[in-house]
Amino acid sequence: ITSRLPEVGTTIFSVMSALAAEHGAVNLGQGFPDFACDPALVDAVTHAMQTGHNQYPPMPGIPALRQAVAAKIEALHGRRYDAEREITVTAGATQAILTAILCCVHPGDEVIVLDPCYDSYVPNIELAGARAVRVPLTPGSFAPDFGRIAAAITPRTRLLVLNTPHNPSATVWTAEDMRRLEALLAPTDVLLVSDEVYEHMVFDGAEHQSAARFPGLAERAFIVSSFGKTFHVTGWKVGTVAAPAPLMAEFRKVHQFNVFTVNTPMQHGLAHYLQEPSHYLGLPGFYQAKRDLFRNGLAGSRLRLLPCTGSYFQCVDYSAVSELPEMEFCQWLVREIGVAGIPLSPFYGDGFDQRMVRFCFAKQDETLRAALERLRRL
Amino acid sequence: ITSRLPEVGTTIFSVMSALAAEHGAVNLGQGFPDFACDPALVDAVTHAMQTGHNQYPPMPGIPALRQAVAAKIEALHGRRYDAEREITVTAGATQAILTAILCCVHPGDEVIVLDPCYDSYVPNIELAGARAVRVPLTPGSFAPDFGRIAAAITPRTRLLVLNTPHNPSATVWTAEDMRRLEALLAPTDVLLVSDEVYEHMVFDGAEHQSAARFPGLAERAFIVSSFGKTFHVTGWKVGTVAAPAPLMAEFRKVHQFNVFTVNTPMQHGLAHYLQEPSHYLGLPGFYQAKRDLFRNGLAGSRLRLLPCTGSYFQCVDYSAVSELPEMEFCQWLVREIGVAGIPLSPFYGDGFDQRMVRFCFAKQDETLRAALERLRRL
Ligand SMILES: CSCCC(=O)C(=O)O
Ligand SMILES: CSCCC(=O)C(=O)O
Repeated sequence: ITSRLPEVGTTIFSVMSALAAEHGAVNLGQGFPDFACDPALVDAVTHAMQTGHNQYPPMPGIPALRQAVAAKIEALHGRRYDAEREITVTAGATQAILTAILCCVHPGDEVIVLDPCYDSYVPNIELAGARAVRVPLTPGSFAPDFGRIAAAITPRTRLLVLNTPHNPSATVWTAEDMRRLEALLAPTDVLLVSDEVYEHMVFDGAEHQSAARFPGLAERAFIVSSFGKTFHVTGWKVGTVAAPAPLMAEFRKVHQFNVFTVNTPMQHGLAHYLQEPSHYLGLPGFYQAKRDLFRNGLAGSRLRLLPCTGSYFQCVDYSAVSELPEMEFCQWLVREIGVAGIPLSPFYGDGFDQRMVRFCFAKQDETLRAALERLRRL
Repeated sequence: ITSRLPEVGTTIFSVMSALAAEHGAVNLGQGFPDFACDPALVDAVTHAMQTGHNQYPPMPGIPALRQAVAAKIEALHGRRYDAEREITVTAGATQAILTAILCCVHPGDEVIVLDPCYDSYVPNIELAGARAVRVPLTPGSFAPDFGRIAAAITPRTRLLVLNTPHNPSATVWTAEDMRRLEALLAPTDVLLVSDEVYEHMVFDGAEHQSAARFPGLAERAFIVSSFGKTFHVTGWKVGTVAAPAPLMAEFRKVHQFNVFTVNTPMQHGLAHYLQEPSHYLGLPGFYQAKRDLFRNGLAGSRLRLLPCTGSYFQCVDYSAVSELPEMEFCQWLVREIGVAGIPLSPFYGDGFDQRMVRFCFAKQDETLRAALERLRRL
């Protein structure tokens, strides 16, 4: 058997979660909450199962959930998607992104990703038989470098993958950034996958700048959302994609032959729960408090805090503490300090090592305090 | 946007379900039960959600479920799979099959499918950049034609897709069939995807001949199962794959970048429920009674019943009733008789039309009786 993905090993998230478990470390590595979701959400799913919603849903998802998602996008971003033809429910955001890439990227095409980027994008592109073109974000600030993006576009460029709020850097793209991308893509037919799974974690009063807000982006975009991130149920694996009808028609062709459909009772439960906007409008405040708790706790330490304007991640520069490369430092941190984080280097194609670690603050306050107590020993 | 799957439309299952709903027909088309699953299974999932099993499970699935599946395969088929390295939980069988194909089939390869075949196989092969080679089963009997299979194997043949019990024909491969395939593949390095989702629906005292029973097949096989089919929850979208460690290592590389993981509370509920073998050992008897009710009800009619030795499908030859092609006949049947079935022609690459319809008997007895009453008018 000849591998289709010869360079792929186990994801860094699984590796660090296993190491954390082995050493009893406080796990701020893999991004998932360690607290319970709203019991009302569990009740809604239970109710769906008990009332017989256990067989195949319609292929693109149940209408109630698609309509609720379309209504949310319109309320928040002002763009109207047709729930019937332009929204599809997916088995999580990762499946959504692979499916979007597979449905429109052909063997021999090029796809631009912005380094550092989430570790599924490049293998997804390779599975489509295409070539990933890695364009670095500006070192230090992680700001988009539009000159370099423009220079990377060739006649073979089929797609660009955007991610805002950004994992792992915890930066968000401003409206001005989005407009510049819109202008840059305007003369091209490059499509866009916009991974917006942290859409409800944007801080300090800023607004999430969805691709849905920018007509020149929205018309070419697959916009990816995740209920797991938004409702503290990362293990439920339900997400959505919004895209203009012609793009969505192609998406669904692949979707129906990938997963065909997505868990029925979960869809019903989520559709019910989504009716109440307070269930997501409170999220920035909730996570901002956790961010501030974590940042304040590290304020006097030798870990340099990077800005965190979105997502549930906080990056730190540890170069004042250690000269170890990131991977070794993270292993040492688990073993000696008892805290797991994620090195940034696996998010780069060339393993760029800037002595930075990403911590996830989607944790109970007491978990964060336990981690802080240990990290302050550094 | 240039389609990756230009020939793909909406699946025949969605088309016929929509038409049945529109006309208030009894829906014996798309394969799904119209009765409830065991409430104990719902309770097990509810318990998992309420006790906090809502975050990412391990990438290949929770150990308890993988162990339960390995134990079941060993008990039923005598082959021992290592739950740690050789079993993976998937978001249903369709995702399992795409993932198996993507992980080992390279652009330019050939993959053999046996016509008629399930409608996802060929698009899956095309998404891998490979070419599907369609070898017909024997017209009339649907028996494998090993001469034609052997003749279709070339140096580029990477994989063969097997499906037993077979959808749509309701035939099962005998031990002798499996041994002949084993002998035929022995001198080759052709891999096998063995779609065994109807494994617990084999009738008249026969046993399901899993690829796991034949060492020469098992060593090269991805064996695909479906809890949706077995436990009457087609909407839950949880399946499994068993494969030798070197194959599974490649499978997981793609799996982790397709869905990454599968619904956590469903996995816990299923692992609990699977502990009790009576939950699946009673299935052949349960479905055989439904098959017999349906067949007996059509005994005096002008629909000719084909043999049904497995699956929850019954095929009929309607040539004594109508000269319409299958698609038109099925539309007429919905509109005029009020019963939905599935034409067989979409399962063939060349649309081969033998005046046959597939009915699904995974329905309450009263649903079957209502359908029979209408069908007897023919
Ligand atoms: C899909 S596993 C890890 C979750 C995540 O998105 C992250 O930690 O970056
Ligand atoms: C995946 S939808 C249809 C279910 C099925 O397998 C069938 O009816 O053949």
